[in-house]
Amino acid sequence: MKLWQKKYTLNKQVEDFTVGNDHVLDQRLIKYDCAASIAHAKTLKKAGILKEQELKDIVKELNSIIGLEKKGKFNIKKEQEDCHTAIEAHLTKALGDTGKKIHTARSRNDQVQTALRLYYKDELNDCKNKAENLIKILSIFRKKHSTVEFPGYTHTRKAMPSSIILWTDSFIDSMKDNIKLLIHTSDLINQSPLGTGAGYGIPLEIDREYTRKLLGFKTLQNPIYVQNSRGKFESTIIHSLAQIMFDLNKIASDIIIFTMPEFAYFELPDELCTGSSIMPHKKNPDVLELVRARYHIVLSCEFQVKTMTANLISGYHRDLQLTKEPPMKAFDITKETLSVMTLVFQNLEVNEERCKSAMTEELYATEKAYDLVKKGTPFRDAYKIISKEY
Amino acid sequence: MKLWQKKYTLNKQVEDFTVGNDHVLDQRLIKYDCAASIAHAKTLKKAGILKEQELKDIVKELNSIIGLEKKGKFNIKKEQEDCHTAIEAHLTKALGDTGKKIHTARSRNDQVQTALRLYYKDELNDCKNKAENLIKILSIFRKKHSTVEFPGYTHTRKAMPSSIILWTDSFIDSMKDNIKLLIHTSDLINQSPLGTGAGYGIPLEIDREYTRKLLGFKTLQNPIYVQNSRGKFESTIIHSLAQIMFDLNKIASDIIIFTMPEFAYFELPDELCTGSSIMPHKKNPDVLELVRARYHIVLSCEFQVKTMTANLISGYHRDLQLTKEPPMKAFDITKETLSVMTLVFQNLEVNEERCKSAMTEELYATEKAYDLVKKGTPFRDAYKIISKEY
Amino acid sequence: MKLWQKKYTLNKQVEDFTVGNDHVLDQRLIKYDCAASIAHAKTLKKAGILKEQELKDIVKELNSIIGLEKKGKFNIKKEQEDCHTAIEAHLTKALGDTGKKIHTARSRNDQVQTALRLYYKDELNDCKNKAENLIKILSIFRKKHSTVEFPGYTHTRKAMPSSIILWTDSFIDSMKDNIKLLIHTSDLINQSPLGTGAGYGIPLEIDREYTRKLLGFKTLQNPIYVQNSRGKFESTIIHSLAQIMFDLNKIASDIIIFTMPEFAYFELPDELCTGSSIMPHKKNPDVLELVRARYHIVLSCEFQVKTMTANLISGYHRDLQLTKEPPMKAFDITKETLSVMTLVFQNLEVNEERCKSAMTEELYATEKAYDLVKKGTPFRDAYKIISKEY
Amino acid sequence: MKLWQKKYTLNKQVEDFTVGNDHVLDQRLIKYDCAASIAHAKTLKKAGILKEQELKDIVKELNSIIGLEKKGKFNIKKEQEDCHTAIEAHLTKALGDTGKKIHTARSRNDQVQTALRLYYKDELNDCKNKAENLIKILSIFRKKHSTVEFPGYTHTRKAMPSSIILWTDSFIDSMKDNIKLLIHTSDLINQSPLGTGAGYGIPLEIDREYTRKLLGFKTLQNPIYVQNSRGKFESTIIHSLAQIMFDLNKIASDIIIFTMPEFAYFELPDELCTGSSIMPHKKNPDVLELVRARYHIVLSCEFQVKTMTANLISGYHRDLQLTKEPPMKAFDITKETLSVMTLVFQNLEVNEERCKSAMTEELYATEKAYDLVKKGTPFRDAYKIISKEY
Repeated sequence: MKLWQKKYTLNKQVEDFTVGNDHVLDQRLIKYDCAASIAHAKTLKKAGILKEQELKDIVKELNSIIGLEKKGKFNIKKEQEDCHTAIEAHLTKALGDTGKKIHTARSRNDQVQTALRLYYKDELNDCKNKAENLIKILSIFRKKHSTVEFPGYTHTRKAMPSSIILWTDSFIDSMKDNIKLLIHTSDLINQSPLGTGAGYGIPLEIDREYTRKLLGFKTLQNPIYVQNSRGKFESTIIHSLAQIMFDLNKIASDIIIFTMPEFAYFELPDELCTGSSIMPHKKNPDVLELVRARYHIVLSCEFQVKTMTANLISGYHRDLQLTKEPPMKAFDITKETLSVMTLVFQNLEVNEERCKSAMTEELYATEKAYDLVKKGTPFRDAYKIISKEY
Repeated sequence: MKLWQKKYTLNKQVEDFTVGNDHVLDQRLIKYDCAASIAHAKTLKKAGILKEQELKDIVKELNSIIGLEKKGKFNIKKEQEDCHTAIEAHLTKALGDTGKKIHTARSRNDQVQTALRLYYKDELNDCKNKAENLIKILSIFRKKHSTVEFPGYTHTRKAMPSSIILWTDSFIDSMKDNIKLLIHTSDLINQSPLGTGAGYGIPLEIDREYTRKLLGFKTLQNPIYVQNSRGKFESTIIHSLAQIMFDLNKIASDIIIFTMPEFAYFELPDELCTGSSIMPHKKNPDVLELVRARYHIVLSCEFQVKTMTANLISGYHRDLQLTKEPPMKAFDITKETLSVMTLVFQNLEVNEERCKSAMTEELYATEKAYDLVKKGTPFRDAYKIISKEY
Repeated sequence: MKLWQKKYTLNKQVEDFTVGNDHVLDQRLIKYDCAASIAHAKTLKKAGILKEQELKDIVKELNSIIGLEKKGKFNIKKEQEDCHTAIEAHLTKALGDTGKKIHTARSRNDQVQTALRLYYKDELNDCKNKAENLIKILSIFRKKHSTVEFPGYTHTRKAMPSSIILWTDSFIDSMKDNIKLLIHTSDLINQSPLGTGAGYGIPLEIDREYTRKLLGFKTLQNPIYVQNSRGKFESTIIHSLAQIMFDLNKIASDIIIFTMPEFAYFELPDELCTGSSIMPHKKNPDVLELVRARYHIVLSCEFQVKTMTANLISGYHRDLQLTKEPPMKAFDITKETLSVMTLVFQNLEVNEERCKSAMTEELYATEKAYDLVKKGTPFRDAYKIISKEY
Repeated sequence: MKLWQKKYTLNKQVEDFTVGNDHVLDQRLIKYDCAASIAHAKTLKKAGILKEQELKDIVKELNSIIGLEKKGKFNIKKEQEDCHTAIEAHLTKALGDTGKKIHTARSRNDQVQTALRLYYKDELNDCKNKAENLIKILSIFRKKHSTVEFPGYTHTRKAMPSSIILWTDSFIDSMKDNIKLLIHTSDLINQSPLGTGAGYGIPLEIDREYTRKLLGFKTLQNPIYVQNSRGKFESTIIHSLAQIMFDLNKIASDIIIFTMPEFAYFELPDELCTGSSIMPHKKNPDVLELVRARYHIVLSCEFQVKTMTANLISGYHRDLQLTKEPPMKAFDITKETLSVMTLVFQNLEVNEERCKSAMTEELYATEKAYDLVKKGTPFRDAYKIISKEY
């Protein structure tokens, strides 16, 4: 039984095709959809659609679903399509006519967006916490090795003296900028969709402002914009995550190269390395290679929502439903990768001796030119004089 | 116990991070890995590594694994990482020292690529069959409506008279070109990786040519190229599938527009339409919208393997392992979408009356200009004369 | 003569290959590079590198370059590679030893980023102004047609009543969100790179804080981060522009469909339409089709900087230089497209009669269900009762 | 005066916006459009539209345009929009009524595709020649250093012994596969569009087969497919080029790392290196970094045509015109990069001593395990025994 069930039966192949894996993805939306439904029920009560007792019954059942889900006992069936149907079916089974009233003054279109945004806000906050934690660990790493210098590279060639402090600070500052973007994004999507129906409002007086307050959204969103922002908001969310992953990609690239025995500025303990099925001597930085590679998965998620939603007229299209998986995937990857990079910096060792011995003479060529500058030679002439030595 | 197990224990968080979902994806590679291992065992026998009885035992066990997997009874455990470990563990448990010999003269690097290529060849062939089937159904549709004319559009504006034959033929021809690309791609990847080890060969004499013949590959592949082609071959595979999906995207776009009641050149039976949770009157072409949207998923798969594998030096990197999921996803989507589009054309109706009434006068403006041309007016003058009427 | 000229001569083919079109792109950076160089000269004066008169001379020459460029008389030669070399060459030619001092305490690496960020800030502000102007015109359009209702669509099928107000407001609100993102982005990049050299600082005491204030940047940026943010900042810039283009893509998609004679809710005057070389009757919305298509150009610019800069270790690589063109292209496209869309709304007509006659009965099916709800029928039952009519 | 000129004047801003840079891009299509027009004129003669003398005059003028263009004297004006208008305008000016007849039985839609395909075929062939030339130079390099061994890497860690032969052969084989794809692509697009008009044929009897033969196309193409293949064919073309660029990206990545003084297996002569504006000692592999980066430009071209053309119904849209620039850019880049990589291999030196001294003991760990295998130890046990040494 579907929310839109009609007198005819949907072709089985079409049903399988259209449901896809929504019932699996939606599992993580159940608690958010219940929370949104509680607020919605209160608004329906305020509008006179639900009676006091009906509201109580609905709230009780929704809380019970939240409890069941937490214990892994509320599972969406494939034929139910999504969490919305599963929840309404549960309410109707438990409460009869009362359950049949819950979908008043909303459509699945605004309902799913409400649940998604509550989920996004939680996840963005989680990413923020994990990024802050990484910064904390980077700061400890920085302090521990605050006296260490090692070569700075440009064009993958020794350039000028660098240091652990300079290197670590660059990532701390960059991660702080990422956090600002996460906050901006969280603020951007903080708009209440509930009560906008399928994109053209509801032919019934309800107090959207009341629902908004109950759910903690900052503003009300225009009904058509609710639908048109689907994919657009996801695109900004994933872009924000991609910025974090970009930094992790670079850190991983640095450590992969600088833990090579040929450099050995850094060392990764055995417990973080994997081996080869054929070569008995190998200790490989798989963990860092996967950090590096996962940036591209997040990019492909961003790319997908950005192109899938283009060249379409205003209003909901089923295409938009496929924007559900990419942000979920991007969140999972970003959070796990932030955690693993934190672990890496808790275990990364600096080989001070190798760092020191790598501080070879050419790294100071610029300094030599500046010594001439200090004595009055114009820089461009000083540069030419020193360059003849190389 | 891993294939590369050493004296230390891998950090649990790193283990979870590195294994990822490989054990799930690899489930579909089991039969291919067993087939490759049978050929490999025969080559080891030829090289004197395995004795006659050892070979027999190994082949028997590998066939038994194939049988178990078919019944859903051979499941890779997460701690086993992948199908290769699960299979070797099974052999060693069943056959003791004999099992420990199977990984002679190969690495997981060449082993997984062998299994993948056998899998790719099967899937490419499956896609070819499904594309041919769609062509068959298109031909029936074409014949059934061979007398119907309807407006041809450019710039989403009525342009000149078109017909079901012209329209259907365009997709038949295009799908035939896609099939040629599938064949080219299948031919491209038809190179034997087995026996190239981790990318630098095996310090042991084995007859790669014999393995190649047993597995039906066309040529032997250079060991470094085996690794460097990872991602590159997948990119061509997914590009081939994307070309199919591009056509299906366009067909879907056409039908979505032309089944609008405002046009109604085509009609989709109720059984293929889904409804709305709020609007009682709706019959929506979700199935076609998802066809359209899924093109972009395949694109994002292609994009991912194309960027993830760039800016890396030669040889295997763990990054390459993440090129496993995108082609699997792209195959699943393409095959299912080809099938559903076949279903659509088995059920799509043509509203001849609406087609006819849509053949309005302006569609013949060009014909009017050509009537003047036939009477001797230079085309450019004829064009100007007629254009004044509009 | 290059800034890095050595005793050997660069291979001609390599020179052509490496210079590329930098000398063309850099033309628009001249004024920003001069402004940055003026601030830099003042800082050099403060550090005792330049004398009072030397500073005066340099400032005068740099202002003269700004003037020349404005008149189209300062052109970078291909063999000069970029604006930095052209400007230093001019100074050295005009001022001798004084000119040779200007490159003290900086590298082209921090210099180009300073010029780029001044340019970006100007362009982002320009985009903001153009977006605000579009909002202004949308508001006028909205007011002019404030009583008009027309069908709202979901799944490209008539759904529920919509209106010009609802439709226009959705784009106004969306564009306001875009403006917030532009501001966030402008704030993000508002970090002073000057004085960080090639990414590892300058072996000379200079007052970066003073330069920062002179140039109006908000903070100082870590030297390694300056280089590592190349591509990363560009990615956020282009993402911000892509969000604007996404909205314009959707507006264009709406108008293309709804100006079809089959709908004719909107009308585009002839002066904004182009014709066909063969069909005398055609009036095509090319302008809107190009708006739609240009979103994808901006996306491809974003994609390029996002992947090109990945999988690289910290520090400058020449790869990063190719992140210069994509944001320039994206700015040009976005600004021009905002302007053209403003023109479209200044000329777009609403056909009130066609809008009205399109308000067919099924658009009110949901209202009918809600009439039953108001009389006490649970919504789900009301939905089923009404759905039987369709 | 435009080909579609009507009684009204196109808005100036719209004109600028729609013309874009077509007049610049089309410069390289002039000779192909003239060649196609000559064939078209012959077909018009056959159809009785042109008289013998008219044909002669037209052919003469078209050949004269080809000659003028070669000398840089046939320049398309912006107000002419494109090469087609410029050429027809020239014919009409020179030949009066005869010129006005050339556009009979064609539209710009099939005309531009004909010119583009002739251009594509030439360019694909050029790429093939350049790829073959690179193979030739690689073979010489391979032979010259045929005795040199150097370390093979996996996970950016020393793995097993490799050699110049193994390494060079991997790229030779890969480039040969690329050439096969170029040939496949050239064959795919070898379909004659001319005479299909705007996508729905021409209301006049003409011998398309005759035109096809004159132009050397392999088959005739369905009129709607001609338009629907726009973007689709370009996507396969750019994909083919991206495969070449992928290989060059990898070669460049290898050489950038292995020319680092820390490795120095390879050496790049000074004449191929560029310097720094601040660091006097630097010799940078900019040429290789740009090779590496340019892969991503080609990818972004592919991406653009793949997404820009999706979600659109059948038939021409102006969006498709923006698929013109990406393949041109991709061809230019690929050809130039192939040439520069050929130059690199003509100059790349191998430091045999550094290669030799890098062949450290752990590279032979696998060989040690195989020594045990040869004495009868099962491989998995041998692996464990040897792994204890590391």
